[in-house]
Amino acid sequence: MKTLAEILGGIRAPDAQIAAAAQARLDAKTKPRRSLGRLETLACRLAAVTGKIVPPLPRKTIVVMAADHGVAQEGVSAYPREVTAQMVLNFLANGAAINVLARHAGAELLVVDMGVATPVDAPGVLSRRMGEGTANFTHGPAMSRAQATAALEAGAAIAANLAASGVGLIGLGEMGIGNTTAASALTAALTGAPAEEVTGHGTGIDHSVWTHKVNVIRRGLAQNRPDPTDPLDVLAKMGGFEIAGLAGVALGAAAARVPVVIDGFIAGVAALVAARLAPELPGYLIAAHRSIEVGHRLVLGQLKAPPLLDLDMRLGEGTGAALAMGLVDASLKILHEMATFADAGVSDSGR
Amino acid sequence: MKTLAEILGGIRAPDAQIAAAAQARLDAKTKPRRSLGRLETLACRLAAVTGKIVPPLPRKTIVVMAADHGVAQEGVSAYPREVTAQMVLNFLANGAAINVLARHAGAELLVVDMGVATPVDAPGVLSRRMGEGTANFTHGPAMSRAQATAALEAGAAIAANLAASGVGLIGLGEMGIGNTTAASALTAALTGAPAEEVTGHGTGIDHSVWTHKVNVIRRGLAQNRPDPTDPLDVLAKMGGFEIAGLAGVALGAAAARVPVVIDGFIAGVAALVAARLAPELPGYLIAAHRSIEVGHRLVLGQLKAPPLLDLDMRLGEGTGAALAMGLVDASLKILHEMATFADAGVSDSGR
Repeated sequence: MKTLAEILGGIRAPDAQIAAAAQARLDAKTKPRRSLGRLETLACRLAAVTGKIVPPLPRKTIVVMAADHGVAQEGVSAYPREVTAQMVLNFLANGAAINVLARHAGAELLVVDMGVATPVDAPGVLSRRMGEGTANFTHGPAMSRAQATAALEAGAAIAANLAASGVGLIGLGEMGIGNTTAASALTAALTGAPAEEVTGHGTGIDHSVWTHKVNVIRRGLAQNRPDPTDPLDVLAKMGGFEIAGLAGVALGAAAARVPVVIDGFIAGVAALVAARLAPELPGYLIAAHRSIEVGHRLVLGQLKAPPLLDLDMRLGEGTGAALAMGLVDASLKILHEMATFADAGVSDSGR
Repeated sequence: MKTLAEILGGIRAPDAQIAAAAQARLDAKTKPRRSLGRLETLACRLAAVTGKIVPPLPRKTIVVMAADHGVAQEGVSAYPREVTAQMVLNFLANGAAINVLARHAGAELLVVDMGVATPVDAPGVLSRRMGEGTANFTHGPAMSRAQATAALEAGAAIAANLAASGVGLIGLGEMGIGNTTAASALTAALTGAPAEEVTGHGTGIDHSVWTHKVNVIRRGLAQNRPDPTDPLDVLAKMGGFEIAGLAGVALGAAAARVPVVIDGFIAGVAALVAARLAPELPGYLIAAHRSIEVGHRLVLGQLKAPPLLDLDMRLGEGTGAALAMGLVDASLKILHEMATFADAGVSDSGR
């Protein structure tokens, strides 16, 4: 397994010349120049990432990482902690929203236990457990620096294996009761934004619980004093095992020149951690959607990743990533299948 | 064939009780309440329109209507008039963007000649020609009131036939050099907005042509004085045959309880004309996307139809409608395939 330093050293910028060549192909198609807007931008990004002017339609996998969070003890979620493990079983039984939407997108699902409180001992789960959930960050670091590094490396190895087996598009999904609290704390620590500006209502808390959640995040930040110039320090102190794992998946995918579809707030924060470790990472990202979690907008802004969809979703699991994968395929089919002005005998205005 | 009065008389409001029953189904699924946002709203709208709490996955058709516009003589487009017929042939040869995206969506394409300047005599085109293109509206009405009525009735009959053959979702697409000029004129006439606020850059004109286009629209409005309280008068004086036909398709679909996916600015204006004729029509509409045509935002606002996608597209043809159809299917699959809290043994927070 590659070390974090080796993974980071393997990430190059996507190829802007290939993107320009893909745009030239699109400009010869029977439509006014750029009239498919962001669908064209998307196709060019896929070309730049893969290094192929006309990338093949990708095999797709959504990696759903699950873990528990010590901070859930503080009562920051509408759901009990057991729901993390229950939902992992639901993923395996094909009953969750991400099962339905991954199938719709033609994507496989890879469910990874990064540290659910009670191990999910069922066929179909990849076990990369870093512990029995993180520690409660209001008392000390959520995890050690060694655990954060191990989770990043485990995620990157998963992406490398997927790429080696022919997967050409990877989506990030997650499940973990309490993980919007971790994501908000990470966002505050990485960006300097005040806790109340990056804290949302998660999967459905009311105003008094929200106020409590903001205070829990403030206490966690005061207790741990994460160093914003050291992303690994921030990740270890405020993070979650699934967030660290997903950051690793993003890094491993970029190193293998595989584009990454980020999902909602938590996957977005994982991508932001990864981008702080590898400045070229954002070129590999496709932002699926803007969730209604208030911190998500800030995270996507930091990643310079405008979302494809804005559907008021707030579920996570990779559901937004799955929906966006349909648009990815559509953009590539335009590049593959449309006639040129010359082919079709249509007059070109040159515009 | 039904008369316009019969068609309008057959349009009832969608069933709000069925929508509420569909929402209750969604609320029992293993996800926080409403956490799939507008995907849930969409599923409920489909339920209300079809009258089925769990509507089946629909067979889909995109109706692409083509026609020429007398106002194109005024030099308002970047493309010569011949491109309308050339693009119809491209649709038949499967080379256009809409062919690619309809296939991607699993939708059939129905290409209708509503009045291309030179008849497109090729297998696969449905001929419903109302003339050899409209008249130039800077000199007088684009068409007669009888032609407008006939085009509406022809469109409605097409939708009725599709519904009778089992099509459960209809997309609106169009092709017609000069038709953004007609669409802007119709929008100005129907809403009272000044021409410059509803006139965009079409398929790619520069600022001086844009200024000319605004003046052409002003002259057309001054020449014809369309009566905003009489949608048929507005349609006849400023419209296009394909716009009238698509308005008819929307009305016929609503009368048959089939939801309609509107596309960009021109299809949106057709839906707005239809909504002025039948106040219950907007309940049957799904707004696919917001194009960069400046008038589209106003039209969608008038229809109270928030768009699903916002991808800076400006191509028309039904391309946005095709992309949105993937989201329609996804929303229905959530209703069909997701497990309930009870099925999956997942703790429900009740939120």
